[in-house]
Amino acid sequence: MKNRSGRLIAASPSVCADLLYAGGFNAPDGVLYFEAGREKGLILSPLEYGRAKSEASKKVRVFSREEFLDADSPDRSDLALLVNLTERTGISCWNVPSDFPLALADSLRARGIPVKALPGAFFPKREVKTASEIANIAEAERVTEEAMCYARDRIREAKVNAKGFLRHGGRIFTCEMLRSEIEGLLKERGYTASQTITACGWNASQPHNLGWGPIAAGKPIVVDIFPRSDSTGYWGDMTRTFCKGFAEPVVRKAFLSVRKAGEIARKMIRAGVCAAEVHLAAAESMAADGFQTGHTADGIPCGFIHGLGHGVGLEIHEGPRVSPLNRKPLRKGNVVSVEPGLYHPAWGGIRLEDLVVVTQDGCRNFNTMEKELELE
Amino acid sequence: MKNRSGRLIAASPSVCADLLYAGGFNAPDGVLYFEAGREKGLILSPLEYGRAKSEASKKVRVFSREEFLDADSPDRSDLALLVNLTERTGISCWNVPSDFPLALADSLRARGIPVKALPGAFFPKREVKTASEIANIAEAERVTEEAMCYARDRIREAKVNAKGFLRHGGRIFTCEMLRSEIEGLLKERGYTASQTITACGWNASQPHNLGWGPIAAGKPIVVDIFPRSDSTGYWGDMTRTFCKGFAEPVVRKAFLSVRKAGEIARKMIRAGVCAAEVHLAAAESMAADGFQTGHTADGIPCGFIHGLGHGVGLEIHEGPRVSPLNRKPLRKGNVVSVEPGLYHPAWGGIRLEDLVVVTQDGCRNFNTMEKELELE
Repeated sequence: MKNRSGRLIAASPSVCADLLYAGGFNAPDGVLYFEAGREKGLILSPLEYGRAKSEASKKVRVFSREEFLDADSPDRSDLALLVNLTERTGISCWNVPSDFPLALADSLRARGIPVKALPGAFFPKREVKTASEIANIAEAERVTEEAMCYARDRIREAKVNAKGFLRHGGRIFTCEMLRSEIEGLLKERGYTASQTITACGWNASQPHNLGWGPIAAGKPIVVDIFPRSDSTGYWGDMTRTFCKGFAEPVVRKAFLSVRKAGEIARKMIRAGVCAAEVHLAAAESMAADGFQTGHTADGIPCGFIHGLGHGVGLEIHEGPRVSPLNRKPLRKGNVVSVEPGLYHPAWGGIRLEDLVVVTQDGCRNFNTMEKELELE
Repeated sequence: MKNRSGRLIAASPSVCADLLYAGGFNAPDGVLYFEAGREKGLILSPLEYGRAKSEASKKVRVFSREEFLDADSPDRSDLALLVNLTERTGISCWNVPSDFPLALADSLRARGIPVKALPGAFFPKREVKTASEIANIAEAERVTEEAMCYARDRIREAKVNAKGFLRHGGRIFTCEMLRSEIEGLLKERGYTASQTITACGWNASQPHNLGWGPIAAGKPIVVDIFPRSDSTGYWGDMTRTFCKGFAEPVVRKAFLSVRKAGEIARKMIRAGVCAAEVHLAAAESMAADGFQTGHTADGIPCGFIHGLGHGVGLEIHEGPRVSPLNRKPLRKGNVVSVEPGLYHPAWGGIRLEDLVVVTQDGCRNFNTMEKELELE
């Protein structure tokens, strides 16, 4: 008998982008996907079967779990199902994603069915977006930018009280209120955002701090919005940093340095450029401006303390990374964020993020919104 | 040397409820959690370290990845880190959740470090909620019910046009609009919902069909709302079925049967009752009303085609299941949905879902909203 390897995913499409990509079908619960020779199949509970028949990708055959379970056996487990699937397809080894669930793999192996975790991406072509994927991401980023313009206007139109805090309609305007308004607007457009960053002052010095409490004038406010389309599953991702009124000189200087680093990076991006080189060029530019990356005397990381960018698609963070660790060339059709940032506990943080698609001889920026710090 | 087993999770807290439960810290990217003897630790990128120090559970020690990586080695992988962690803690075998990533487990094993997937729940006590967890879920369900009342009022206040479709302000009122309004309201309250079900007529006959197009009068509209608190991570879950104007007799009959089945189930629920028995009692009651579970002549599943309920907590679907497959007793502190339903392609679907906490001698219903079908 020939050695015949197949491919297998066991996950929920709502959290597994590979499964959503391959099957074109979203569901809250676990689903199995396999490739055996030319056949591609989705195996679902009878509860999802009818819906999957009409909604799933036409490249994929839809099966009910019942078709792979013995009618007279009480065992309805994934293991029992996969043992039957293996036999029926004549597969002698399953190649699976690196995050395939260990217990299921061990059970299959115990039944004499080899399971091999593939290193790296399970569908490497997910990094190279098709025209229709690019359109989905462009649309997500357009809506993201709409929300960002809204946030800017809310900060611009706020009053400042005697203590230096922003107010709207007589109420103190907080980071939580700004976040909730942004996310509410996105929901109206059919996009889900949570953990939106609206962080002011010291909170902005931690890149993933969501931000809490009253928004203060004269301090940098990092606004990082990353919603997912409820219909397509594609993400947008965008960051701006604002300041109500005048910023401290060091903040203004950091803002200009970050903005310049982003421009330098976007000018370098094209098919064939080494991803790490793009990161390093941005980092060097900021270092030359006097913003070294390292630690404060207290050991707190400061400077440019994250990668320059990451791929965006059906996952908010996917390949290719634009970081010192990725020496590979960028390719036409990659969609990556370009988000230099500078952070310091003494003055806060600045991050400016656009989303671009790599083209043969450059990149196309999905964002058109200007980068301005001080809002009067 | 003594045989010393530890526990290990490698995942992102934003999708791994066990990790959020153990560490009390949310982050979009991968985090490691371990237990070695009495020590419990979270290991994070330097980017998250500062925030985790202030936000994570006080029972857990927070480490930066750098503390477990060799300063002079270019290898910054989870594998390199875990090899060092294993050595430093003197652990001889790691017990991991059943969905631990296969590739990482295989790499550890290849380095001579045993990894064993534990069957079942990694933290079984997650099924038994503490008072503070119950308060979080009760609050989530309160907000969910607020959104449900809003949905009911929107249907009640709609006009009906000559074709029998609902209108608001001169515009046709669609399932998509109702969904987006519900999710927008929840966002304003700090809750994230997506895939909210607002399914009318035939679409309602598929339990997970989200619902599309104009809402028709005289047809059942299943509204299933399940938002997650952005601050606590706990979920609410609630379903009502409405009908604008008069329903067909079979729909009215199904509604009454489902409502009665839910009442029977809630009366049975108490610490010690077998979960499967509760499901079966609800199923039998509906069967006795003439709603058998099976297939239409075309092979489409109809009747009561899902489990009666599921646990709700940091996951929307968690243990204990209230289904024929769970013969175990319910325990005091379990929080479960009670959601009988009936489905048929000819007339649609009815589902009514409340969320209850199991007590010593009964259950407490988090929901107070009445169950009414026809809205005039």
